Amino acid sequence: MFESAEIGHAIDKDAYDAAVPALREALLEAQFELKQQSRFPVIVLINGVEGAGKGETVKLLNEWMDPRLIQVNTFDQQTDEELARPPAWRYWRQLPPKGQIGVFFGNWYSQMLQGRVHGRIKTAVLDQAIDEAQRLEQMLCDEGALIFKFWFHLSKKQMKARLNTLKDDPLHSWRISPLDWLQSKTYDKFVRFGERILRRSSRDYAPWYVVEGADQYYRSLTMGRILLEGLQAALQSQEPTQRHPHAAPLIASLDNFGLLASLDMSQRLEKNDYEEQLAAEQARLSGLMRDKRFRKHALVAVFEGNDAAGKGGAIRRVAAALDPRQYRIVPIAAPTQEELAQPYLWRFWRHIPGRGKFTVFDRSWYGRVLVERVEGFCSPADWLRAYGEINDFEEQLTRAGVVLVKFWLSIDQATQLQRFEEREQIPFKRFKITEDDWRNRDKWPQYSDAVGDMVDRTSSEIATWTLVEANDKRFARVKVLRTINDALAAAYARD
Amino acid sequence: MFESAEIGHAIDKDAYDAAVPALREALLEAQFELKQQSRFPVIVLINGVEGAGKGETVKLLNEWMDPRLIQVNTFDQQTDEELARPPAWRYWRQLPPKGQIGVFFGNWYSQMLQGRVHGRIKTAVLDQAIDEAQRLEQMLCDEGALIFKFWFHLSKKQMKARLNTLKDDPLHSWRISPLDWLQSKTYDKFVRFGERILRRSSRDYAPWYVVEGADQYYRSLTMGRILLEGLQAALQSQEPTQRHPHAAPLIASLDNFGLLASLDMSQRLEKNDYEEQLAAEQARLSGLMRDKRFRKHALVAVFEGNDAAGKGGAIRRVAAALDPRQYRIVPIAAPTQEELAQPYLWRFWRHIPGRGKFTVFDRSWYGRVLVERVEGFCSPADWLRAYGEINDFEEQLTRAGVVLVKFWLSIDQATQLQRFEEREQIPFKRFKITEDDWRNRDKWPQYSDAVGDMVDRTSSEIATWTLVEANDKRFARVKVLRTINDALAAAYARD
Repeated sequence: MFESAEIGHAIDKDAYDAAVPALREALLEAQFELKQQSRFPVIVLINGVEGAGKGETVKLLNEWMDPRLIQVNTFDQQTDEELARPPAWRYWRQLPPKGQIGVFFGNWYSQMLQGRVHGRIKTAVLDQAIDEAQRLEQMLCDEGALIFKFWFHLSKKQMKARLNTLKDDPLHSWRISPLDWLQSKTYDKFVRFGERILRRSSRDYAPWYVVEGADQYYRSLTMGRILLEGLQAALQSQEPTQRHPHAAPLIASLDNFGLLASLDMSQRLEKNDYEEQLAAEQARLSGLMRDKRFRKHALVAVFEGNDAAGKGGAIRRVAAALDPRQYRIVPIAAPTQEELAQPYLWRFWRHIPGRGKFTVFDRSWYGRVLVERVEGFCSPADWLRAYGEINDFEEQLTRAGVVLVKFWLSIDQATQLQRFEEREQIPFKRFKITEDDWRNRDKWPQYSDAVGDMVDRTSSEIATWTLVEANDKRFARVKVLRTINDALAAAYARD
Repeated sequence: MFESAEIGHAIDKDAYDAAVPALREALLEAQFELKQQSRFPVIVLINGVEGAGKGETVKLLNEWMDPRLIQVNTFDQQTDEELARPPAWRYWRQLPPKGQIGVFFGNWYSQMLQGRVHGRIKTAVLDQAIDEAQRLEQMLCDEGALIFKFWFHLSKKQMKARLNTLKDDPLHSWRISPLDWLQSKTYDKFVRFGERILRRSSRDYAPWYVVEGADQYYRSLTMGRILLEGLQAALQSQEPTQRHPHAAPLIASLDNFGLLASLDMSQRLEKNDYEEQLAAEQARLSGLMRDKRFRKHALVAVFEGNDAAGKGGAIRRVAAALDPRQYRIVPIAAPTQEELAQPYLWRFWRHIPGRGKFTVFDRSWYGRVLVERVEGFCSPADWLRAYGEINDFEEQLTRAGVVLVKFWLSIDQATQLQRFEEREQIPFKRFKITEDDWRNRDKWPQYSDAVGDMVDRTSSEIATWTLVEANDKRFARVKVLRTINDALAAAYARD
């Protein structure tokens, strides 16, 4: 969920200074148009970890925009009046009217998250609260509201570094409240339950935007641009009043530095090391699968990746370790007639293994947010809601004991070109390369964005994505096997 | 929630025999068209109390329709294969393909309801399960499915009578399984948690239909007609594939016997009795409001009713008992500019009393499902989703300790006419009668349907509707006061 927000996004000051004037002007214009139309209100929720610049960004936003038409609401201790009424009353009374923007700094999510982190409520009650928040947001959107939900993020390392800098700086040390330090200790819990909230409450009509907060220029520009694009799309929409689609909810990184770009693609394994490690991991997998604890689990491995990234080869190395009765490989191509007559996820549900079994999906349900998104095979509404549906699906799998590993095999463009050309040379590999492959290659940037969004929105504690640096096939194959083994071992350890 | 399904709906055999052939033919035709289009699947969920004819009705439906295109699925004990996989797998594998009808007899709701009734799960976990069911249904509807959810109902009295008849009849006594008897004992729990499920999972895209099950002819025709109307609307819809609106989800009673028609309108109070009882209830109210336990609660009274039913007079009799600092009367007329710039419920949230206070709403948030529905002031989609939003709203109030009483003051048409004419005669009452009142009167049947639906969909343990027989003003006023007092006393007793 937070992968893309821990890779060190940054924009330098000059670029920032150059970009701000146009952004401000466009934001002011959009705000003016919003007032003119007075068709819908805008609600901006601010959440995230301490020290990630929530306060500074809101302050800046307030400076950028016309303060008469934007109102920042903070919700700390409840007042007497609020305590005397249902909890939601305090939010209702601060709702912005049509034509205006309300920034909710501290909101329903902060309250439930703090409650869970400090053990005041259990997970089932947290889920009730999330559900209630969703009903509220759904109703607000049905009534025309445009909702942005921001999570400002810092990795644990970044947060500690930031707090330490502030502490040593006499000018700023007053800014560290005890709360900050407490949060540093409870960071893991905060992020874990935060992830649960984001996973369950990110919906097409009100998605979460995770923004890395370490660099002030990056985070300010990013938030400004998300707001601007969302506002403009809603203002131009010809729909009457209801359910603004977030036209461009998933924003490509501002600094052209995405998750895939952050991988170290030079990693490789020498032949001897490879053979040794491969044999060791295959033996380990074979043992783990014969372990009697596996009877309480099932294993699902999802393989996605660039064309020619070596999915097939990696799958073969996994299968080689196993008794064929224990596993099944399900290649996902175009759906059959029977599958087309069913809801999208049906064709995957039917292949879910029972306990003690292992299914490999060679391509998967992620097709909807990858190829179908990029090629326009489904509507934006369909792939936007798919993230939430997939998270629900995977949550059901893992709750039933399924160990779920998901691989994106990543190669760079040069490596792909080289492999394509090789394939065309070798007769028995020629069938593996088609016109489609060359066409897909032209859409490299769109696919990269789609992969980044996919990982950000569907990687979580319960179903983590593993990005595999696959320029070197040996390295990739061993990493795949090791990841599967580690996931199984971790599941046994939790039993 | 079950009010309309406990009043003894019935259709005689001749009327039934006369109606069935045309219904069957139309159903078969719709089924054929469904197959021809093969645009969407139909999912029918069957739930409700034991003995209410679930099985018989499904059997009949199967006889009526083309058995090749309808499949009845029962979900009892899980099979080994099912136990080895996530719980939802058994439902997924039985989903009907586009163009076909799947009847789910025993389904996700039966499982969660039994779990809660028998104490295997707590309420928070039940809510999680409801939430999950909603996500599933939302996804299915987004994928084009048309979902009908039926709850077959018997009052406790009806159920006991039915079980006793069966027991004494040697031909049928084998039909009473131990489960039936168990259910007779757990009836109250079953209905209470059933109500919670219906309240939280009835949404515009997949509403619940409650059908009284005592009379076989009534229940069969009703179910058949609901299916037929829903099918026809979806088949005719020009929308591409997504989210079939349930065009006529709320069906007027087949036997022309609605909730309002079941009231005994002849009830009245003599003047002496009235004065005595009024004084006693007013004194009681005054005492209950000064009770220190009231500081933990607030009181909200909603007054709706036919024009000239005597809302104003009843409200004055309530107010007369109280210190003006303790209560506020909020008359709801056309919304202000400021209110129009906010979500629908905002204008009511702003008047929610704090603890220790009392607010009377003279007309209320129910305007949306009454006048706005009947007069077409909002779209069907808006008033259809309002039931769920109102239930959420009222649940928040009661959870915060608010005691909520809701009155529908009911008079018959003759009484209304008489009062209208009187008002026109008396100079100081003439302002109370307008052209609108006469116009509304022409829509008496539509208003009656709207009231029936409103009560069925928003009356529940936490926020019961009280129907007040108001032909006699004295009777009505005392009943209103007594109901308020009883509700306060009950809340104190629960503290």
